[in-house]
Amino acid sequence: MQIDALITCPHSKARAGEIHTDHGSIKTPVFMPVGTAGSVKSLSPDDLIETGSQIILGNTYHLLLRPGMEIIQSAGGLHKFMSWQGPILTDSGGYQVFSLGQMNKISENGVIFQSRLDGSRHTLSPEISMDIQRSLGSDIVMAFDECTSYPSMQQVAQTSMELTHRWEQRSLKHFRSIEPLFGHAQQLFGIVQGSVYPELRKTSAQTLVEMGFDGYAIGGLSVGEPKEDMMAMTDVVTDVLPQDQPRYLMGVGKPEDLVRAVALGVDMFDCVLPTRNARHGIMFTWDGPVSVKAAREKDVHEPLDADCECYTCRNFSRAYLRHLFKANELLVYRLASIHNIHFYHALMSRMQEAIQGKRFLQFQTDFFSKYNIKRAGGAS
Amino acid sequence: MQIDALITCPHSKARAGEIHTDHGSIKTPVFMPVGTAGSVKSLSPDDLIETGSQIILGNTYHLLLRPGMEIIQSAGGLHKFMSWQGPILTDSGGYQVFSLGQMNKISENGVIFQSRLDGSRHTLSPEISMDIQRSLGSDIVMAFDECTSYPSMQQVAQTSMELTHRWEQRSLKHFRSIEPLFGHAQQLFGIVQGSVYPELRKTSAQTLVEMGFDGYAIGGLSVGEPKEDMMAMTDVVTDVLPQDQPRYLMGVGKPEDLVRAVALGVDMFDCVLPTRNARHGIMFTWDGPVSVKAAREKDVHEPLDADCECYTCRNFSRAYLRHLFKANELLVYRLASIHNIHFYHALMSRMQEAIQGKRFLQFQTDFFSKYNIKRAGGAS
Repeated sequence: MQIDALITCPHSKARAGEIHTDHGSIKTPVFMPVGTAGSVKSLSPDDLIETGSQIILGNTYHLLLRPGMEIIQSAGGLHKFMSWQGPILTDSGGYQVFSLGQMNKISENGVIFQSRLDGSRHTLSPEISMDIQRSLGSDIVMAFDECTSYPSMQQVAQTSMELTHRWEQRSLKHFRSIEPLFGHAQQLFGIVQGSVYPELRKTSAQTLVEMGFDGYAIGGLSVGEPKEDMMAMTDVVTDVLPQDQPRYLMGVGKPEDLVRAVALGVDMFDCVLPTRNARHGIMFTWDGPVSVKAAREKDVHEPLDADCECYTCRNFSRAYLRHLFKANELLVYRLASIHNIHFYHALMSRMQEAIQGKRFLQFQTDFFSKYNIKRAGGAS
Repeated sequence: MQIDALITCPHSKARAGEIHTDHGSIKTPVFMPVGTAGSVKSLSPDDLIETGSQIILGNTYHLLLRPGMEIIQSAGGLHKFMSWQGPILTDSGGYQVFSLGQMNKISENGVIFQSRLDGSRHTLSPEISMDIQRSLGSDIVMAFDECTSYPSMQQVAQTSMELTHRWEQRSLKHFRSIEPLFGHAQQLFGIVQGSVYPELRKTSAQTLVEMGFDGYAIGGLSVGEPKEDMMAMTDVVTDVLPQDQPRYLMGVGKPEDLVRAVALGVDMFDCVLPTRNARHGIMFTWDGPVSVKAAREKDVHEPLDADCECYTCRNFSRAYLRHLFKANELLVYRLASIHNIHFYHALMSRMQEAIQGKRFLQFQTDFFSKYNIKRAGGAS
């Protein structure tokens, strides 16, 4: 998978371009809303399009446990099941097994775990993960890796990374041996591990590039390490990865993280933060996050951001949103999510334009001079 | 308020026509979705328009307690607060005080009650209810009445009805003494009481017609009485009410009730059933209510109704809806509500067309030959 029309920033590693799937092209840098269980929480496909979503993410672990692969495959894949016509990226299921699952056994072959829903036993391995993502029909498939826990001693991180490399090699081999099910192409991304050790990260990136994936993800970050470590590891890895292929920083993050990581050469992001924060009344503005549930909003008959073009800001006041939150009205979870997802996409668009206009550094300075990360009182 | 373009059925009391407000005209018979707390649960104004909603209802009791009249009045009224451009009908608050409130005192003047939210004390009287509905800026205002509890002895029902008549006279007097706040006209409807006693109902209707309201509601039904009593009382009352003014059967009801009540000459309905049932997975079809959460739907990759033109049926399968319910995904409450509200409006449209085409009796026969009220297993 190539990044086309690649434009690079002369003063940083930031890049803008376009990648292509059979379900449409994607302008990068891009933020991918997370549709964990076959739905980006509270949003319909039409909402996603209207907010500017180009590609969404689905979670293999959640979909495997409910509704199960048989139902999604018989629906014709995840696109048809959830009525989303655009591209979909699915993760391998590995991360959730480690973070959410009740793990029974990990071996060279893979992992055996129990469903948190009904206690049923399931196995995930590189081959099984590839088969599942084939049944889902995602446009971008993630290799099966072990997400190294944080903190880990360097020797432990290295052992975990080496297992990941063997699993990724098996993922690649199996992926190449099977045909897509639904008539559209699937691409496979490798995942760089190595915890917070620069040498391991470098080795991991080099090893994966030699294997030859369609794109590369940076995994095992945003798991509790200091923000500076996250950025340093990203910096090390993007120096090794090929210029002409997409890089995806998994599970990141806050608006300020996206700006910093774009400056380090990242093209793709996903995070539940905009939708999760929305459901808690934390909404993003160019001045920073705002808690719309705060008492001071109770009679503010102005939109969250008068210049915002989202459906929520075009139609509803802060006072109304606050009232809906106080009254536990379902509508507000959607209205707040629409705004936050729109904000994330607007942020990516502004970065694309700044890179294309060769003024990314100026954009970055302007962004940070205005955006107060603590504005909502630390609630985000 | 006149019913224009009135067409009557030659074989029943069914009628079709149009009423006018400053926020738009309304084709009757009409179903009004209930926006209890300033939001038709889970639906946006755009959703309401797309499902065919012409007018919605707001509950004075809920809005008085939260967010309070000051906030809604300073927003410019309920239309602006919730961003709904169409007509709004508000109730008087009386019914909810009796059914939901912790009542402290009822007197000739009115009622004193405690908020179920914070224990604060509030007074409602005919004059106060008119003032509140003026602050809300509703297009159709309901007179303040006492909803007679069911069952009631005839003497008790008569005493209650007589109090209602005095309160309605005061409502009318006060309503005529105040000017609308927001530049659009408001209309006042009287409410017929009389429990299940035909003579009381007749007296009540005659008394209100003599007072001269802009339209007439039938209150105190759908409160536990047998369905046949509801229909008999409706029949008695519509015989007395003027032909050229709208009649509104409050709080009714199921699809089969709407068909029967339209045949008795009712023009307007409201009920929380379509949205409440939607949130419980009970969805309406022309064959009857269906529980989309049922196991048999788990791999049905067809819409709820292939002929339905709602957003939900155009895009999503029963299997997907069932999955969303099982996964507690917020999106499904909206998708199910869209379908049910669309169904109710489609039912009203079919009745309008049948009346206009002088084939209402045939419509009624066809409807009941197909619609199985018990289909969902009694869950509706």
